[in-house]
Parts: sequence; C-alpha cells; structure tokens
Amino acid sequence: MTCYNLALIGFGGVSRAFLELLEKRNDELLEQFGFRLRVVAITDLRLGSIVAEEGVDVPDVLAADPGNGGFRRLGGSTDARNKWIIHHVPADIVVEATFTNPLDGEPALSHCRWALRSGKHLVTTNKGPVALAAAELKALAAQQGVAFEFEGAVMSGTPVIRLAERMFGGLEIQGFEGILNGTSNFVLGRMESGLDLGAAVREARSLGYAEADPTADLEGHDVRLKVAVLANELLGGALAPDDVATTGITALTPADTAKAAEQGLRWKLVGSARRTPGGGISAQVAPRALPLNHHLAGVSGAANAVSFDTDLLGPVTVSGPGAGRVETAYALLSDVIAIHESRTR
Amino acid sequence: MTCYNLALIGFGGVSRAFLELLEKRNDELLEQFGFRLRVVAITDLRLGSIVAEEGVDVPDVLAADPGNGGFRRLGGSTDARNKWIIHHVPADIVVEATFTNPLDGEPALSHCRWALRSGKHLVTTNKGPVALAAAELKALAAQQGVAFEFEGAVMSGTPVIRLAERMFGGLEIQGFEGILNGTSNFVLGRMESGLDLGAAVREARSLGYAEADPTADLEGHDVRLKVAVLANELLGGALAPDDVATTGITALTPADTAKAAEQGLRWKLVGSARRTPGGGISAQVAPRALPLNHHLAGVSGAANAVSFDTDLLGPVTVSGPGAGRVETAYALLSDVIAIHESRTR
Repeated sequence: MTCYNLALIGFGGVSRAFLELLEKRNDELLEQFGFRLRVVAITDLRLGSIVAEEGVDVPDVLAADPGNGGFRRLGGSTDARNKWIIHHVPADIVVEATFTNPLDGEPALSHCRWALRSGKHLVTTNKGPVALAAAELKALAAQQGVAFEFEGAVMSGTPVIRLAERMFGGLEIQGFEGILNGTSNFVLGRMESGLDLGAAVREARSLGYAEADPTADLEGHDVRLKVAVLANELLGGALAPDDVATTGITALTPADTAKAAEQGLRWKLVGSARRTPGGGISAQVAPRALPLNHHLAGVSGAANAVSFDTDLLGPVTVSGPGAGRVETAYALLSDVIAIHESRTR
Repeated sequence: MTCYNLALIGFGGVSRAFLELLEKRNDELLEQFGFRLRVVAITDLRLGSIVAEEGVDVPDVLAADPGNGGFRRLGGSTDARNKWIIHHVPADIVVEATFTNPLDGEPALSHCRWALRSGKHLVTTNKGPVALAAAELKALAAQQGVAFEFEGAVMSGTPVIRLAERMFGGLEIQGFEGILNGTSNFVLGRMESGLDLGAAVREARSLGYAEADPTADLEGHDVRLKVAVLANELLGGALAPDDVATTGITALTPADTAKAAEQGLRWKLVGSARRTPGGGISAQVAPRALPLNHHLAGVSGAANAVSFDTDLLGPVTVSGPGAGRVETAYALLSDVIAIHESRTR
C-alpha cells in the first residue's frame, strides 16, 4: 500500500473541504487506486501551523479557530511557517490553496517554487501561479522529477485541462471559447431579466456569488488569467495575462440586453483563444451577443463551460461548476490521483 | 517503433473516413504516441475482401466500387469473407464497423466474438453488440488478454464512455441524462418552430439527418440501446435494452410544443438512468419538457449531450457531435490509441 503524506498550505474553505473529503473517501481511494492520503502538516495565516508526522487529528484541526488559540492549542505554532514547513516537513505532496495576487501571483507563487525546489509534488487550485509562471514551474518540476498539477485553476473540479490533454489524442484543438466566470454570467442573466448592473451585482453578492469587490469578475480580469492558462495548456502558447485583450461587462446596459433579446441573441462574457495562420495565438476576453443556439448560450447562472474547437469533431463543450468549496477540493483530489497514476504506470 | 496491423470489417462511410484519417495522421501518431497503423485486410458486403500483409494500397481500395469489380479487381475476392479474415489474417486489431440488428446485434456481434476468440483486440462503433452483450464480450476479452473498446457506440467520437471512466476518479456518478439521438432532437427543434412531425421529419430527411425509415430514431429505440450501454458502463449495471422503459416523440404535437414554449419549457427526448436506493438502476427514454435553463435544454439541432450527475461536482455535461463519418472514425482512432496506451503503460 502506498501512503502519500500531504502538507496543506492555506486552510480556508477549499482545504477544509479537501480534508473532510479525504476522511470520507480514504478507504475508497485505497480500494480504487491502492493509495492512502495522510495530512502531516497544515499552515494557515489565521490559525498558525501544525505538524504531525503520524497525521493530524482531523476533528481537532477542523475545530481550530483563531478565537480558541488556533493550531497553537493543538501543539502547533501561532505563525504560518509556510517556507519552513514546505522545505522541511517530510511531505510527498504540497497542496497549495492560499491566495494569489493577480499581478505577481504571490504568495502562492513562492509556495509553488519552494515545494518544487525541495523535490515535492505540487498541486494547486491557484490560477495566479499557473497563469503567470507555468513554464517556469513545469521546468522546475521536470528538473526535480516531480509532478505539478493544477486542474482547479480553471472551472474548479470540472475536468477541463486534463480532459483536453487526455481525451483528444490524435486530433488538434484549434481554439476554445468559454464562460469562465460564474459571477459575471449570473449578473448577465439577471440583467436579461431587466435588472441594471448595480442591482444584479447586489443580488449576486447576497447569494454569495460575488465578492465584496467584484471588479476582477466584472472587468474580465479573472477570465483573463484563465484564458492565459488554457491557451498555454491547450494550444501550447506562451502567453502572459497581458497578452489577452480584455473587456469586461460593466459597459453593458439593460438596453443592450433587451436589444439582444429582440434579435434572438444573449450577452455572454466569453474568454477565447485561437491559433492564427502565422503560428501564433490570438486571445481575448469580451462580451459577445451569442445566438441562442450557440453552444455557450445555454450556460446559465453560475455555471461555467469551455467549448473546444477541434479539427475532427468540431466543437466539443464541457460545462459544470466553476467554483465551490467541495468542487474545488475535488480538483485537488483529482490532481493527487493523476500524480499517483503517473507514478505507478 | 510499434506497428499495429488492422483488419477493417465493413467498408462504409465510417471505415473509409478512418482509412483516410490514418493516411493523413500516421506520421503524427508515430510522433505523438510512438506507433504506426497498417490496414492489412478489408471486408465489405458490397466490395468483397482484400488481404495485403504489407498494407493495402489506400487510393486503390478507396476507389473500389461494386461497378468496377470491387476488391476482386485488386486481387481480392468477391465475397466478404468476414469469418475467415477475422480468424486467419495476422491482424492485431479488428475494426468492426458493419451494421447491427437491434434485436440480436448481428452480424456485428458475431464479428466481435470471432475477433476476441481469435485473440485480437477489438474496436467497434456498433452499439448493438455493446448494448446486448458487453458483459460477455468483456469477459471474453479479459480471458484472451486483449482489449475491447467502443467509444463510438455512443455520441460518435465525442468522449463520453472513456471520459466518465478516466476523468471522474474518486467521485461517484449517481446517474446521467442525455440527448442521444440527433434526428429526434432536430425534429423537436423544428416542431418548436411550428412544423408538424411529418413535415419536420421530411426536412430532416432532406438534410441527411434522418434515414428513409426513421422509426428507430423517433420511437426512442436508438436511444434505448445507448442508455443501456451507458447505464452498464457508467453505473455498473447489467441492463438489457428491454429493461429501459421507452417512449418516443411520435405522440407529440405542435400544440404540445407551443404550450411548452408558453410555459418556458422545451421538449427534449431524454435518455436517462439513475441508481435507486435499493442498489438497482432505473433507466428510461421519454420526452420531457425541460426548463430553458436545464443543462440539456440548449442542445440544439443534431447535437448530442450527456449530463453526468456526480456526488461531488453536481451535473457535468459534455456535448458534441452524435454522428458523422469523420466524427465516428475518430472514435475508432481514439479506441486504438487507448489500446496502445493500455499496452505500453
């Protein structure tokens, strides 16, 4: 039996859901794949750090709270000793789920570098490091002989990156277009029903679909990072986020949505990229008024979708959740399974 | 370098597209996967049989026609010597793409049995043998140590069976619902525009979406076979097609579609299956009036889709072509690639 030791960097909603998932599924993972997972360290900005070589006590760490002493009360320390833990804890896999500054990818990017440099496999749900530094991190992983998986960077656990990689052998993906941000998609749907942008955003916020500051969602910055990730992974590009021409939805008015409806069209914020005849890649994020029979027009609410344009099958579209604690935790689990499979083949 | 010798059983549109695809992609397959494919035998009811151990002459066999002597003129024989060829030609992989009687799966089912019994890998696009005898054929393949792949049995080359098998490790598929027949979906769409069933069927026929006798499409018999295949593959069932309660769309009238539209609904012919609390599987094919924001409501024209209901991600939907020569030929290629990968891991 193989047992992988995990270090969780960041212990927010996704990491907690991941830990709960492991508790529930460990026997099934053993039966289905022949491995067990054991969390030997956790760090978190609010809770501190804990190391337990025999595995953390799951109910204890889930109950830890800044108000009750965090991990310190469990024998850990008050500070999130990310660098030390990533380097020195004998983990096989570092699970990076902190946060990311879209400009420089930090602090997640440093966590990724430390993990790979210290010879540990790395899985992350953070699109920042992937959008900004995938090539560097992949080279580092290859050099160290470890794996770097990041299915959760786009559309949470809905298989997109690995699907394109594994399900389309023998054909060519010529481009893609996607609805990659649930907040803006929800807001556009509500504007179709007559709300103005402000009212639609307030509703999204009250339902938990939008953050306090929804700028990154509405201005297309979030989608831009995902387009860069997909263009590089699916089309073999080397794009930086700045290479993706980006327009958000904040200029759209109820009059625009009403006019589109009259013409049998529906506004969607579409992130897309395509191979150009010269061998390059053109990538953009922009609102587009799609005909109702377009394969992305029916993607409603907070759902996400990517349509791959393939030479032999035409468009093939996958839609599913674009966010969510459990859904993103599953992305981490699918990454760990992928690492196991790549090691045992 | 690995070279797989193929015997093509049936040389209709799909097999021809497959042969053309191999010609075009052989160098890329070698580069990407490290193998080459060589067609060493073809049999066809109209053209006869040809065997060429060094590989058939592709332009010659593509130009063969019953009017110009078929394969006999190329040194072959006038009769389709399926049984002899499957048993005695030194092929590694038998590519079965003949036709299938939905009642007993013949003649395709016999071809499948012969191929596996003679120790050859088998790929097929025929849903009949898979719907009627997958368990028997899989047991035979396991006993002989060969592979049996049939991605093309459902939704042509759109990854569905293999996607569910490979992309959802660690979660549970609790059920699925799908639009699995392009003809009936096209007809329903045209009925929404006000045509009656007869006129919609005539239009489908004139566009090549419907066969001369569209009964199997309109009465749900085609979908029933696909539901049985998916229920068995995705949910671990042991259903026969007769276990799938089936109602087609022929009782629907323009008044029904108009009334649905008034209520914000849209009729779709949905094939579905679901685990029942007792550990069984309930499966059916029936027209359903779906709300417009349902993940299958936007699947229009001749497109197909399957929505997997998963415990961790909720519904994940894949849509793409459900038929087509090149699209189904790609299913065969993806099966061959899967065989290669399973042998070289």
